[in-house]
Amino acid sequence: MHYYPLSPTILLMTEKYLSTDSYKGVRDFYPEDMAIQRYIFSTWAKTAERYGFERYDASILEPSALYKAKGAENEEMVNEQTYTFIDRGDREVTLRPEMTPSVARMVAGQRHELSFPLRWYSIPNLFRYERPQRGRLREHCQLNCDIFGASHYTADVELISLAYQTLIDFGAKPDMFEIRVNSRKLMQEQISDKLISPDLLPDYLRLVDKKAKISNDEFIKEEKKLIKDGASVAIVINDKVSQVLQGLISLGIQNAKFDSTITRGFNYYTDTVFEVFDVSGENNRAMLGGGRYDNLTEMFGGEAISGIGFGMGDVTMRDFLETHKLIPEYIRSTAPHVIVIPMTEEENMPAELIAQHIRKAGITVSTDIGIRKVGKKIGDASTRGARFIIVIGENEVSSKQLTIKNLLSGEEHTGELGSLMNYLDVK
Amino acid sequence: MHYYPLSPTILLMTEKYLSTDSYKGVRDFYPEDMAIQRYIFSTWAKTAERYGFERYDASILEPSALYKAKGAENEEMVNEQTYTFIDRGDREVTLRPEMTPSVARMVAGQRHELSFPLRWYSIPNLFRYERPQRGRLREHCQLNCDIFGASHYTADVELISLAYQTLIDFGAKPDMFEIRVNSRKLMQEQISDKLISPDLLPDYLRLVDKKAKISNDEFIKEEKKLIKDGASVAIVINDKVSQVLQGLISLGIQNAKFDSTITRGFNYYTDTVFEVFDVSGENNRAMLGGGRYDNLTEMFGGEAISGIGFGMGDVTMRDFLETHKLIPEYIRSTAPHVIVIPMTEEENMPAELIAQHIRKAGITVSTDIGIRKVGKKIGDASTRGARFIIVIGENEVSSKQLTIKNLLSGEEHTGELGSLMNYLDVK
Repeated sequence: MHYYPLSPTILLMTEKYLSTDSYKGVRDFYPEDMAIQRYIFSTWAKTAERYGFERYDASILEPSALYKAKGAENEEMVNEQTYTFIDRGDREVTLRPEMTPSVARMVAGQRHELSFPLRWYSIPNLFRYERPQRGRLREHCQLNCDIFGASHYTADVELISLAYQTLIDFGAKPDMFEIRVNSRKLMQEQISDKLISPDLLPDYLRLVDKKAKISNDEFIKEEKKLIKDGASVAIVINDKVSQVLQGLISLGIQNAKFDSTITRGFNYYTDTVFEVFDVSGENNRAMLGGGRYDNLTEMFGGEAISGIGFGMGDVTMRDFLETHKLIPEYIRSTAPHVIVIPMTEEENMPAELIAQHIRKAGITVSTDIGIRKVGKKIGDASTRGARFIIVIGENEVSSKQLTIKNLLSGEEHTGELGSLMNYLDVK
Repeated sequence: MHYYPLSPTILLMTEKYLSTDSYKGVRDFYPEDMAIQRYIFSTWAKTAERYGFERYDASILEPSALYKAKGAENEEMVNEQTYTFIDRGDREVTLRPEMTPSVARMVAGQRHELSFPLRWYSIPNLFRYERPQRGRLREHCQLNCDIFGASHYTADVELISLAYQTLIDFGAKPDMFEIRVNSRKLMQEQISDKLISPDLLPDYLRLVDKKAKISNDEFIKEEKKLIKDGASVAIVINDKVSQVLQGLISLGIQNAKFDSTITRGFNYYTDTVFEVFDVSGENNRAMLGGGRYDNLTEMFGGEAISGIGFGMGDVTMRDFLETHKLIPEYIRSTAPHVIVIPMTEEENMPAELIAQHIRKAGITVSTDIGIRKVGKKIGDASTRGARFIIVIGENEVSSKQLTIKNLLSGEEHTGELGSLMNYLDVK
């Protein structure tokens, strides 16, 4: 027989083998990790939906102009910190580094068809071209929740209470985390141009944003460069921030406080900004952050639609859940409820028929049609955490008498498949 | 008051507005489309899980070598039909055009920890750089199901029956679609080198693959270039394909047949190949396709692990469901169950408190804290498909007597919130 060059085998004999590593800074999700990821995503989705948030999505590919529109500083960010390339149609494309510009684009695009206030959420994957570090990868996912078309402070209260509730729904206690609230508008109002030259204010806010990450000496040194001689900055809470905090208290949320060092990295925030921190000391980075952006849809023309939103990352979320031991053990098990084990290849097809019957009752079931010995197959079913096994050989096929074994209790029952179904239907 | 340059507004005044269009060939998912997408994904997931398939995922970013490893022809495919670029670390990166190489990489990477047979599924988004056309976009999603480490024909039967069951679980009837099965090995065995020069066989299989898309004359013309003078190709069914078809029949699947024109585009298939077609005539492209690939993990070194898998696209799936009117109407509604409507801004915060109470019972609820007139708010709640509204004004706040209105029946009930909860708990 002649071997035709359909298979890569021969070609590869002479070549170096490929690495099984993923691309640098991204993750492979094997079933156990994927189960945890899905648990996080489904908890996020359930909480957001209880608040009446509707789910949307967009492509990860966006025109680069979407991120560059906000000024030269953004252009630098796009060029240096994102995956941006030119496609063959000479279009500049970016793998989205955040979701807010995409959702602003979508809302602006259907502003006349949509009815406001709009509550939207999404769980996008986002890309940043930066050095991988704890809690920061080149690709990560985020829960993004936004309210559009409601500028009243109640929207701020509700959105922050949703962020709070998300953590509570994972089993977190309020004393495990802290919500820190500030206002960009407040800072603009209170930092007069007697203290800071207006063109240096964005630099000052960024400096404040990284205050926790640098030494106090360094902060003072940098602050001196920006603040006029002899001036000193002291920000005090204003009415809007007070209302938001009081609103949270009236909803029973006690772990929110005013913090004038919260400024957020993105330039588009205009008023309320907030971040949530793990107070265990294990995870220093903010678990989630957000704020109000009153002008973002303006870049698409038309009247501005006020928005407030937050983003909550999957990596920091998982770190938090693991630190506080909040991932239930059962989440990790992805084994089917029943495994049917044929003794030889002869029983493979009968095993499939039995599995099909069980499956019709909505029960998860698989067959072990591998070539391992039966003992190995049974041991493996147990290790994986299956609840029941059915071993079938020649006798079982001819007599139609099957034995199911409960791997948890050791109990066994023998009979025709139909009569055994009740035993299987145990959660 | 001085305006600091925090907002993009001023900058944008002098610039052209940005377009709200998405990048070419990709989709925005507004809530109604997203709801349909989620319905498709969750139906896929539920069916695969009933078969004992475990979910995995990987990043969309993969080293380009993963796709180029299979020979020069693949190199051409990568260069011309994928999004491939060089990152700043001089690594060549590709946005994954298909999932099979990624799953082979992951399986090979943990071959010693995993227990076989392995049943894995994923719902990845995939990228192709091609002209957008019906059923083919630059980004689309696919259900990918694979069985590794089971070379017995039963695995082929089970995998095809899973593909069949997926469609049935969407409400499809067996006479709406057809499963066409062939074998690459069969073709290799039967197309001897007396008929075709071995190096031309891949070209011949690709020609057969596109037979349905070109005219008969064109097919014959192209076939003549590849087949030796005077020869003619006639493929007849063999034992393995017969066993697979008989296995399907024993599982009650009647709409599968042998079809020697099914060859599949990918070169890595080695034996069974199959495709599923809509028979309505509305959608010509295969809805799903797959096959057995016995050597794919070899490119990572070590012994080959046999795999069989299929991919089913979301775009063709939705076309099929729409053609056969299989998308339930209720899926499209994403409105919350209850909407609390404050009459003025004064009642915004009381509305949030009421919503919070209702939400604790697991009911989806939102507040209409926009600035529209109450009549507009009520009309909108009804248009969106909410089931209940609670309008609150000054009187309701002071008396604590609320009225809930069932928008479907028109029924109203008045009382304290606690006593009204039973009425809300109607599905």
